[in-house]
Amino acid sequence: MMKKTIILSLLLLVSFTVFSQDKDAAYIRKIYDEALERGESYEMLRYLTKNIGGRLSGSPQAAAAVEWSRQQMLSYGFDTVYLQPVMVPHWVRGEVEIGRIVNSRKLGSKEIAVTSLGNAVGTGPGGTVAELVEVQDFQQLAELGEEKIKGKIVFFNRPMDAKLMDTFSAYSGASNQRGSGPTEAAKYGAIGVVVRSLSSFRDDVLHTGSTNYGLNVPKIPAVAITAKDADFLSDLLKDDPKLQFYFETHAQMLEDVLSYNVVGEIKGSTHPDEIIAVGGHLDSWDLSEGAHDDGAGCVQSIEVLRLFKALDYKPKRTVRAVMFMNEENGLRGGRKYAELAAKNGENHIAAMESDRGGFLPIGFGITGTQVEQDKLLSWAPLFEPYGLFQFKRGGGGADISPLRTQDVPTIGFIPDSQRYFKYHHTPIDNFEAVNQRELELGAASMAAVIYLIDQHGLR
Amino acid sequence: MMKKTIILSLLLLVSFTVFSQDKDAAYIRKIYDEALERGESYEMLRYLTKNIGGRLSGSPQAAAAVEWSRQQMLSYGFDTVYLQPVMVPHWVRGEVEIGRIVNSRKLGSKEIAVTSLGNAVGTGPGGTVAELVEVQDFQQLAELGEEKIKGKIVFFNRPMDAKLMDTFSAYSGASNQRGSGPTEAAKYGAIGVVVRSLSSFRDDVLHTGSTNYGLNVPKIPAVAITAKDADFLSDLLKDDPKLQFYFETHAQMLEDVLSYNVVGEIKGSTHPDEIIAVGGHLDSWDLSEGAHDDGAGCVQSIEVLRLFKALDYKPKRTVRAVMFMNEENGLRGGRKYAELAAKNGENHIAAMESDRGGFLPIGFGITGTQVEQDKLLSWAPLFEPYGLFQFKRGGGGADISPLRTQDVPTIGFIPDSQRYFKYHHTPIDNFEAVNQRELELGAASMAAVIYLIDQHGLR
Repeated sequence: MMKKTIILSLLLLVSFTVFSQDKDAAYIRKIYDEALERGESYEMLRYLTKNIGGRLSGSPQAAAAVEWSRQQMLSYGFDTVYLQPVMVPHWVRGEVEIGRIVNSRKLGSKEIAVTSLGNAVGTGPGGTVAELVEVQDFQQLAELGEEKIKGKIVFFNRPMDAKLMDTFSAYSGASNQRGSGPTEAAKYGAIGVVVRSLSSFRDDVLHTGSTNYGLNVPKIPAVAITAKDADFLSDLLKDDPKLQFYFETHAQMLEDVLSYNVVGEIKGSTHPDEIIAVGGHLDSWDLSEGAHDDGAGCVQSIEVLRLFKALDYKPKRTVRAVMFMNEENGLRGGRKYAELAAKNGENHIAAMESDRGGFLPIGFGITGTQVEQDKLLSWAPLFEPYGLFQFKRGGGGADISPLRTQDVPTIGFIPDSQRYFKYHHTPIDNFEAVNQRELELGAASMAAVIYLIDQHGLR
Repeated sequence: MMKKTIILSLLLLVSFTVFSQDKDAAYIRKIYDEALERGESYEMLRYLTKNIGGRLSGSPQAAAAVEWSRQQMLSYGFDTVYLQPVMVPHWVRGEVEIGRIVNSRKLGSKEIAVTSLGNAVGTGPGGTVAELVEVQDFQQLAELGEEKIKGKIVFFNRPMDAKLMDTFSAYSGASNQRGSGPTEAAKYGAIGVVVRSLSSFRDDVLHTGSTNYGLNVPKIPAVAITAKDADFLSDLLKDDPKLQFYFETHAQMLEDVLSYNVVGEIKGSTHPDEIIAVGGHLDSWDLSEGAHDDGAGCVQSIEVLRLFKALDYKPKRTVRAVMFMNEENGLRGGRKYAELAAKNGENHIAAMESDRGGFLPIGFGITGTQVEQDKLLSWAPLFEPYGLFQFKRGGGGADISPLRTQDVPTIGFIPDSQRYFKYHHTPIDNFEAVNQRELELGAASMAAVIYLIDQHGLR
């Protein structure tokens, strides 16, 4: 009798689980259908990129993007839409950026396109001119030491490793040249820095991105050149090591200004105090329209909530779309969001970020407890029909990373990475670089995971 | 003792299999590394698209592409490079293509962009003008019958189903309107056809593509309009069903002309009579540079053999790159290739085609015996590190399909399909639409499968 009861219970459990999975599968299908047939992420992105454009923190465009996203979420009838004030850095590039090889034995003088690294100081009208010392990494820099570096311009020329399938790994392997190169070079008395653009390709595209000056080290001006020019310059230096490089930039860091995160939410019907946040960052670099980085993540996050409204889905928990401000050159918005969450005693049961471009979705990564990770990974089969195959441990996003100190599980949306570092921080990260179906599939995938968290929690 | 021997044999077998898989995995890694670090597919594609351009069968550009691919393969030092003569259709679009809404109560007259379907007859200078009858499918056409259709222009307006994840399924679900629409409409006395472009998007891009006239039915002129204009026209017709549509095309089918398949091969070192073919089609539509369709497949196929040469890999079997001619509007090259294979008693152990664009590789599909299919599917784990997850039964390609009558297993390379029907048969299928890493990853994936077939066969 006991045995029968157990068997019966097991059968009930199994059939319940199967029923639940079928129900989830059917609902997820509805989410994808809505996104693919009547999705609005693409038209939102068109507005944000074409009508507002690049949105560097502190710029008028960033302010316009705050107001646009607030109105956009209000227009969809979310329960609450509000701003979180946050002071952000206000860095400006200046009008003129000039680069030039000078005193080359072979070439004489030759213009080279340059763009200032974000947060960098400018050279001012006089420019900076000196011989170049090419290095691959900080170890080589240290070996050369002050004797060889002082008074020179350091040329960091380590390419991203094309062999790595995950281009974010290749980026991580090369990005310290941009992030810390100027500080490291200044330690040995360098007067300027030229960095090879962080591109997956040997192309002719400039990639900016922030550099971070260390304390008690002179702030020296720093520019990126294209990968093609870096190869050209490197070849030239072999024959002509005494050539000089001139560059002129007028970048400067102004006073901090007031800006905002923008938050829109649908209140939970049964557990309103349990919050699921999904976001992207509203700011972008100034060189382009900031379409993949991270207009895509913003409109996908708004679309998650819009899909729920369109399907008349009433979440049990509170679901929040968060437009973070200042990811690119300060992370002030992400820090402020976490600070307010702690101060207000909010209970985030999960936070998701989309900040790897509006490309084909391939999966999600999660940072959290074993149980939370297992839960997310158990949902992988539900996404097989949509081509997502990568549900993995580890993941999140810069803006939601400060929530980790409150033990919030963070989830990173993972699109395919092969094309991202063609557009990242460049003048060509524009609306035209985003494919409508890929963007919509990303939004649907994100909404499906948020739906599952809302239905089942992560514990 | 017997038992021990069996166990020992099993251990040996297992360790051999593991060793063999490790060896394969290591070699495949080398193939990908070479393709990603020193791949030449992208520069080949640049030449083919930018220096030669669109390559419709019978055009000077198609002839140039034949000679270019011959020389390109010779330059790589393949063992043999030769041409297979084949007579191909010679269809020309003509200079002028005009479309116009006329006699609209609401609009008066309004220009609408049109492009002739491939193989279609032209209207001539007088154009064709009549009322439009909008239909979704052939059943609706039949229901309307001669009474409603005679003397009219039929407007086929069934969109591709955006909900389908595999956009080729969506294409198949809509493409009979283009392929057979003119013939079906002519049966009921229609004097012309307007077809909604076969696009995954409601965009403003024209998609051409071949139509096939049936026997004993009048050949009536036929044009495509953009998806956006199709929606516009459909809305307009609801209020204004008596409006007329005018279109003028000067397309015509000329006499067949001599062209060629181009074949390059590396002779097998131990089984030279066993042939593995890999190819794409050299012809393209005339509206664009034919980058994804199918410049990509051609350069990837050449790259497979170049990778083997670069790695100093001596295949056991003969490996052949085949540039098929006239896939788009006749399939004469594919038929000729199979005809010659039969005539010459060639033993193809496998044929692979790349004709779904130079996008991110996600897998392969195979048509063949159960054993052949199982063999290919057993290799799937070797491709997990490269993000390929779809190894499936069923697949091939138009050009290699005639080889099925000789029981040759056919393998279709499967890239992600989300973006393909933005570019397919349009004026925007140009070099810029192809991403270098995606193209290279495709070539590497193809080379890896060809390597495995060469090492282990498919039986």
